[in-house]
Amino acid sequence: MSWTLQQVSEHNSSNSCWVIIHNKVYDVTEFLPEHPGGASIILKYAGKDATAVYDPIHPPDSLVKNLPKDKHLGELTSAAAKTTAQNAENRVKTRDEQRVDKAQREKPPLSRILSLHDMEAIARKVMSYKALAYYSSASDEETTHEQNSAGFSRLFFLPRVMRPVSQCDPSTTLLSAPSRIPVFISPAALARLGHPAGEANLTRGAHRTGIIQCVSSNASLSYNDIAAARPDPAQVLWFQLYKNKDNAKAEERVREVAALGYKAIVLTVDAIVYGNRERDVRAPWVLDDMEKAETQNAPGVEAGDGVRQPGDLEELEEVDLGGCAGALVAHDDRDMTWEKTIPWLRKVTTLPILVKGIQCVADAVLAAEAGVDGIIISNHGGRQLEYTMPSIEVLYRLRKERPDVFDKIEVYMDGGVHRGTDVLKALCLGAKAVGLGRAFLYAQSAYGEAGVIKTVRILEREIVSGMQMLGARNVSELVPEMVEKVDWQIMASKL
Amino acid sequence: MSWTLQQVSEHNSSNSCWVIIHNKVYDVTEFLPEHPGGASIILKYAGKDATAVYDPIHPPDSLVKNLPKDKHLGELTSAAAKTTAQNAENRVKTRDEQRVDKAQREKPPLSRILSLHDMEAIARKVMSYKALAYYSSASDEETTHEQNSAGFSRLFFLPRVMRPVSQCDPSTTLLSAPSRIPVFISPAALARLGHPAGEANLTRGAHRTGIIQCVSSNASLSYNDIAAARPDPAQVLWFQLYKNKDNAKAEERVREVAALGYKAIVLTVDAIVYGNRERDVRAPWVLDDMEKAETQNAPGVEAGDGVRQPGDLEELEEVDLGGCAGALVAHDDRDMTWEKTIPWLRKVTTLPILVKGIQCVADAVLAAEAGVDGIIISNHGGRQLEYTMPSIEVLYRLRKERPDVFDKIEVYMDGGVHRGTDVLKALCLGAKAVGLGRAFLYAQSAYGEAGVIKTVRILEREIVSGMQMLGARNVSELVPEMVEKVDWQIMASKL
Amino acid sequence: MSWTLQQVSEHNSSNSCWVIIHNKVYDVTEFLPEHPGGASIILKYAGKDATAVYDPIHPPDSLVKNLPKDKHLGELTSAAAKTTAQNAENRVKTRDEQRVDKAQREKPPLSRILSLHDMEAIARKVMSYKALAYYSSASDEETTHEQNSAGFSRLFFLPRVMRPVSQCDPSTTLLSAPSRIPVFISPAALARLGHPAGEANLTRGAHRTGIIQCVSSNASLSYNDIAAARPDPAQVLWFQLYKNKDNAKAEERVREVAALGYKAIVLTVDAIVYGNRERDVRAPWVLDDMEKAETQNAPGVEAGDGVRQPGDLEELEEVDLGGCAGALVAHDDRDMTWEKTIPWLRKVTTLPILVKGIQCVADAVLAAEAGVDGIIISNHGGRQLEYTMPSIEVLYRLRKERPDVFDKIEVYMDGGVHRGTDVLKALCLGAKAVGLGRAFLYAQSAYGEAGVIKTVRILEREIVSGMQMLGARNVSELVPEMVEKVDWQIMASKL
Amino acid sequence: MSWTLQQVSEHNSSNSCWVIIHNKVYDVTEFLPEHPGGASIILKYAGKDATAVYDPIHPPDSLVKNLPKDKHLGELTSAAAKTTAQNAENRVKTRDEQRVDKAQREKPPLSRILSLHDMEAIARKVMSYKALAYYSSASDEETTHEQNSAGFSRLFFLPRVMRPVSQCDPSTTLLSAPSRIPVFISPAALARLGHPAGEANLTRGAHRTGIIQCVSSNASLSYNDIAAARPDPAQVLWFQLYKNKDNAKAEERVREVAALGYKAIVLTVDAIVYGNRERDVRAPWVLDDMEKAETQNAPGVEAGDGVRQPGDLEELEEVDLGGCAGALVAHDDRDMTWEKTIPWLRKVTTLPILVKGIQCVADAVLAAEAGVDGIIISNHGGRQLEYTMPSIEVLYRLRKERPDVFDKIEVYMDGGVHRGTDVLKALCLGAKAVGLGRAFLYAQSAYGEAGVIKTVRILEREIVSGMQMLGARNVSELVPEMVEKVDWQIMASKL
Repeated sequence: MSWTLQQVSEHNSSNSCWVIIHNKVYDVTEFLPEHPGGASIILKYAGKDATAVYDPIHPPDSLVKNLPKDKHLGELTSAAAKTTAQNAENRVKTRDEQRVDKAQREKPPLSRILSLHDMEAIARKVMSYKALAYYSSASDEETTHEQNSAGFSRLFFLPRVMRPVSQCDPSTTLLSAPSRIPVFISPAALARLGHPAGEANLTRGAHRTGIIQCVSSNASLSYNDIAAARPDPAQVLWFQLYKNKDNAKAEERVREVAALGYKAIVLTVDAIVYGNRERDVRAPWVLDDMEKAETQNAPGVEAGDGVRQPGDLEELEEVDLGGCAGALVAHDDRDMTWEKTIPWLRKVTTLPILVKGIQCVADAVLAAEAGVDGIIISNHGGRQLEYTMPSIEVLYRLRKERPDVFDKIEVYMDGGVHRGTDVLKALCLGAKAVGLGRAFLYAQSAYGEAGVIKTVRILEREIVSGMQMLGARNVSELVPEMVEKVDWQIMASKL
Repeated sequence: MSWTLQQVSEHNSSNSCWVIIHNKVYDVTEFLPEHPGGASIILKYAGKDATAVYDPIHPPDSLVKNLPKDKHLGELTSAAAKTTAQNAENRVKTRDEQRVDKAQREKPPLSRILSLHDMEAIARKVMSYKALAYYSSASDEETTHEQNSAGFSRLFFLPRVMRPVSQCDPSTTLLSAPSRIPVFISPAALARLGHPAGEANLTRGAHRTGIIQCVSSNASLSYNDIAAARPDPAQVLWFQLYKNKDNAKAEERVREVAALGYKAIVLTVDAIVYGNRERDVRAPWVLDDMEKAETQNAPGVEAGDGVRQPGDLEELEEVDLGGCAGALVAHDDRDMTWEKTIPWLRKVTTLPILVKGIQCVADAVLAAEAGVDGIIISNHGGRQLEYTMPSIEVLYRLRKERPDVFDKIEVYMDGGVHRGTDVLKALCLGAKAVGLGRAFLYAQSAYGEAGVIKTVRILEREIVSGMQMLGARNVSELVPEMVEKVDWQIMASKL
Repeated sequence: MSWTLQQVSEHNSSNSCWVIIHNKVYDVTEFLPEHPGGASIILKYAGKDATAVYDPIHPPDSLVKNLPKDKHLGELTSAAAKTTAQNAENRVKTRDEQRVDKAQREKPPLSRILSLHDMEAIARKVMSYKALAYYSSASDEETTHEQNSAGFSRLFFLPRVMRPVSQCDPSTTLLSAPSRIPVFISPAALARLGHPAGEANLTRGAHRTGIIQCVSSNASLSYNDIAAARPDPAQVLWFQLYKNKDNAKAEERVREVAALGYKAIVLTVDAIVYGNRERDVRAPWVLDDMEKAETQNAPGVEAGDGVRQPGDLEELEEVDLGGCAGALVAHDDRDMTWEKTIPWLRKVTTLPILVKGIQCVADAVLAAEAGVDGIIISNHGGRQLEYTMPSIEVLYRLRKERPDVFDKIEVYMDGGVHRGTDVLKALCLGAKAVGLGRAFLYAQSAYGEAGVIKTVRILEREIVSGMQMLGARNVSELVPEMVEKVDWQIMASKL
Repeated sequence: MSWTLQQVSEHNSSNSCWVIIHNKVYDVTEFLPEHPGGASIILKYAGKDATAVYDPIHPPDSLVKNLPKDKHLGELTSAAAKTTAQNAENRVKTRDEQRVDKAQREKPPLSRILSLHDMEAIARKVMSYKALAYYSSASDEETTHEQNSAGFSRLFFLPRVMRPVSQCDPSTTLLSAPSRIPVFISPAALARLGHPAGEANLTRGAHRTGIIQCVSSNASLSYNDIAAARPDPAQVLWFQLYKNKDNAKAEERVREVAALGYKAIVLTVDAIVYGNRERDVRAPWVLDDMEKAETQNAPGVEAGDGVRQPGDLEELEEVDLGGCAGALVAHDDRDMTWEKTIPWLRKVTTLPILVKGIQCVADAVLAAEAGVDGIIISNHGGRQLEYTMPSIEVLYRLRKERPDVFDKIEVYMDGGVHRGTDVLKALCLGAKAVGLGRAFLYAQSAYGEAGVIKTVRILEREIVSGMQMLGARNVSELVPEMVEKVDWQIMASKL
């Protein structure tokens, strides 16, 4: 069946809500309350074409999968499709889009990017405000996010001289798979917000540079698409699992990714509720205000308004879910336990299991006792509980208090890594490798796959020369005695 | 008897000082030296209508109660009353009032308030300078006030994962009364400075959200009015007692509030002299200067002036008492002791007793030995002795040095709480609940009762998601092992 | 004999150098190399009237005392004196003088000065650049000067409540003499730089407020003049002794001040060489540049210049001595020892002896063993050795490591005191009293004697209310348990 | 043979690359891949006169030595030489050169330089951007460079009073040679970047002031030239050895410098790979951009560009080598060991041996065991491995953990020294002397030899008065008890 724009436009309320995506018409009325990002964002496009906002934050097959067949209402008439295409083309770009276009034209050649800081600086210029707000945001005052970095600045090196280092090899193996440097791509969502090719940039870049990518459950490409983007089917990918509270669904997901050739399950345990990322929530308001020529004169709220609106709290919840951060946590299992969940997962898969989101020594010990293959010390890039201990500090405590854990399981970490020296500090303390999330999102946003490759090359150069200056020929020669925690602080301006 | 404005205006000196309040005429000549805020502020309105400045900082019945019947001289003639009303209406608004009007018109809808910081930011814009100076001021350089907040930033979490938290309940009981979240409204004075409905906003908001309000002795509504503002007479209110040095008067006050249904006496022991709040003292000068078109050219003081004025010190004292902070401390008991005062209070009431203003471990121990029901660790929001240890630090020391105290009495704290994470840190260390004072004053100043409700809702959301991310299903699962004090500092720009 | 201006003007070089001071003519040719402030500053006025620059930094009788009788050449002719007076009157004021005049006219009434910070802020506006540079300067980067203050910010109070404090007495006795508050005026030089009445402001202010003044050896009034300025001959003054290396001269000085009624000798031991106060040295250059309409285009120094000038080092020394800081240290005894100097001083006087300039625990112990009556822990306001431990930190260490010293001798301190809380911290740690130097110089510069009185009154108010809030009725109830040293830092913006 | 400019200009590619230096023509085609600074910088001048860029960064005989005789193609024709000279003369100065010229004209006379900070401030104004970038740059975020200085700010003095210090002698002996103050010139490269006379300024200045110069292996004058610059052949010079991996070449170098009268071999062990000095690498881009009238509109890199250019990594390496920092490390020995290298060096020379670049206690101990004469604790001015422990902290740890090392070998340090107090702190902790590198480069850049002399005189004055105020008559009286490490921080604005 075919629909005119007029017909679709009549279904523009929560009573009947149709949307157009890639010239197809869907009835999402019943789906509204289930939408992870909240109903209001869909209602903004009720009766209209939503393709442009849908695309960067959903895997292409997301709607098809989540909506019953009978809600797939059919296509636009060809006249309607043509009009839609023209509308898209004629649309006046927003101020933010114009800013991005200019920044893209003026960005420097890749050869001038010397560090991950340079890369981020360019990305911050060329990204849309919405993408930047989503990538950069962290919880509350973003303290843990900042401290993830600052934590590294409290570790200083005690380098050893007069050691033969002309032959220096930074490679290692992660869960038995080789990695050219002790770095992996941490799962980070919605790569297509920053670049049209999205997660595929990461996959191809990882292949070119010989490192491992851990694919996010909330990727803007499906895990099928990402698996398909591998230049070589033997390329090692890991899968980040947000476990569904329905064990059957969760098992199905695990079996699917195993069948696609993913090589490990990274069970994420620190994101069972969504973090309070205000920068992300505020993004649409900022953009709205930006579009208005004059300063926004929001109609004042009379004293007592809240009282006349018993729905105050409900309204609040919706607002909180409005940002990109309103990720699909509604169906996640909030009642996982070591006793129940790990044995279940062992039963449904033979893949190695990493638990991601360990934030204290006690849980690292429990993880080792639970028999997983490894842990990723992580606080979700400071995007979940504010004032969680920085990852490198947790690693430091684990080394000091329970060095035996490093013998039982592989220990990884992510959060706050910007330099080769950061990687080396973590390795000295016993980490097998460190993950970077935002850094790779920024890199692919700024320069696509080339940005990903460049990022790895910069890290490799910094890691190799750092190892040589520390007096280490290979990663096993990076030892705890080479780092010392100091009690002074680096100036704010440096961090 | 009725008076013309002319008649009243003749009594415009300290020899004979009449003032008009709500069209009634009072002879305050003999009251001048007793006025807690100093004589000079009254003399500014000698022979004139003082309603506009009287209202926001005095309970309506304050003058009637404090002035002998024979000083109630009668009413204005109806012509005079009419003139007074016209004068009030025609009065050109001050620059500060104009600023406030504009800010009120432009403030954002309540739905855009994401945090208590947002709420305070709006309040700072829409409040009068005088109100803001009174609410925000603290002693000397305001170090303890700042450190009350900064103290929380030195506590980091060690969250536990893999715990079932889908059912998470933040409720608790305070002195056996239920509270929906472990938060209460700390006694904070003069709510009508910020909003016409004043403390009633707090009372109604507390009722709607299921938390307890502790009413200030210096409220701008009387404790009768506040009790009357309860939508439900069973609503739990606590009463903050500044004990009069005259035991009989103090006893009368306690019996009155007990009769009104107040459920606890919060004996405040840290404010027997007034703190040095310079921002508050300076407020009238700032406003004066603001009104003057050109920069103030104050006549220079000749060298030696002070010598020719033997009254230099007296003048100084008056100035110090000029701000809103010149609270009624003249009649307060400066000779309270554990041995004498607590037994006396036990004798005059059966209500539970909290001692507010504990600032060290030693006094917490003495309080427990004295048999009170609980303590509130507090430094009066940094408004009394500068460089007093931050409240959260005192709580931390009490947990470390004398954990037994928590078994004997209920321990509360206030000072520096802005986020759900702050509440959770205090609870992990053993607090039953935490109080917020300024935050609620700001909220009601910005949005009235709705602001109060919103504040509780924000805290509830932050507390619940924080508990889930910490791995706690209820407040009893918040334990000391979940927080660690660190020796590094958060950057100044974040605090 | 009488001289014309023409005659005097011919003696304008180092070969023959005459100057006019208060219409008298002096031949200072042979005195040039002995001038503590260097020859060059005198040569700038060779053959001219030097009264205006001489007055603020020399006691009136200084020249008469230091110059042999035969160099007193006589007076100006009356015509010359008249011309000189007219020249002085007609002189166009410098930009800095004009700035000062304007600031003096606009300064606020004394009643608006709430704190010592306010007082300093006004003083900084109304003082000449030269005076400010001399008063405010400290060594090198002025780190110890800053840390003298910052040190107090690391001490927090643990106040005690429920103690009877309605009667609170801040008085004490210093070397058996009564003092209304535990504060004295530290010796600080050149008060006339800031105010024409100079040190007499301090003397009269101290009398009015019941505190003790320690008179500087480098005062801009002679110790005779200062003694004469006492309203009551019984007023207690102490004398700061910079010991001459010639014991006979030193003894004479001690006997003189004893005869004048000074009540203690404060032997200063930390200023045997002059500190590197660059702000002071630079002051004349800054003023020179200020006078020039356009940016100064100093003739460039060719590469190698220094090589062609073998006198490079000598020139350097002169420059260093050019500022006001170039105090009379040339004749000071740089070889004092505990074994030799204290017994000598005991022999020549029966006055009590304080040793000022103790900067470590070890020397405090040696002082007690040497049998002096007391010590002043001091680093000369941060004006001598940079990176010397802050005074309050030395006091803290003395309390912790050698509490017995406080039983043997009286312990004082100065450096960094701005608030009543600072005084109370020092007293809690065992100090009998604390000295303030710059604060009193600033106060008298801004408001003369009235400023001095106001300063004491502010401190008294802050001390008394602080004692009450700490739970102390008198200074003996201020104990070490009331302060705790913390390991965090107050934000830079607060200090 | 003689060449026209036209003939030379035809050899302008990597296939055939000729350059003109001082009117001589060289074929550097085969040398391109060996050039330590990378091929691209030479290719920029292929077929052209490269004298102006060659001179400041190469010893005059560098090309002659490194190029086989048959590549010395001969001279320019006299007409060509004339044209070249005219071109050089007529060349329009770059914006940076114009800025430098103006700054040179306006710089203050040397007598106004009070401190090494003043000296650096002038140098920063009068130096070319390229020179400044090379001198000032350090690794990554320049943290270790900053912390080298900041480390001193955590050491405070505990001065002793009442000690006879009128006679105070700051002299010492370094490897048995006398030094007027405990300071030496650390090896720092490329002095001619800052001043035409280059390292000779240092040599002559050291002679005039009686201190020792350690000559850099990468000096812009040859070690022969520098030896020849000594006014007195007995002047003590040390030689910094970057050991060639070819032992024969290394031995030849050692013998040569011994024959020239160098008095010690300073084997540098911390610079076997080049540090990541981004400021230096970026310098040419900054200068390029500065020359362009409008903002640079670099052609955008299309997404994926990096992928289409398989040479991405190679390009990166070249860029990294582009700055002045791309020093001659290609031939350095990266496989030195204590067991092999020290015995070899002992065998080839009888000169005393210092090992420079010790960065931890463990290696200081190994050095002592290896039998060298001394060590220089150094991290290459923060120019090698970022986050290496500051030198003064390493010295502090060595004193605390292994005081015996100071009895076995002479211990030196460099890094972060700006003040006499810094020198004194290091000496109190056991250093024989401290080295300054950048400070001397800045001084000679600003004022040539005179700047070097002035620098030593300032340090001498600060050291002597500091010793007197500490109570030390000579360097042996500077003891560990005089310094204490504190746990607070100096404000950022002071460092």
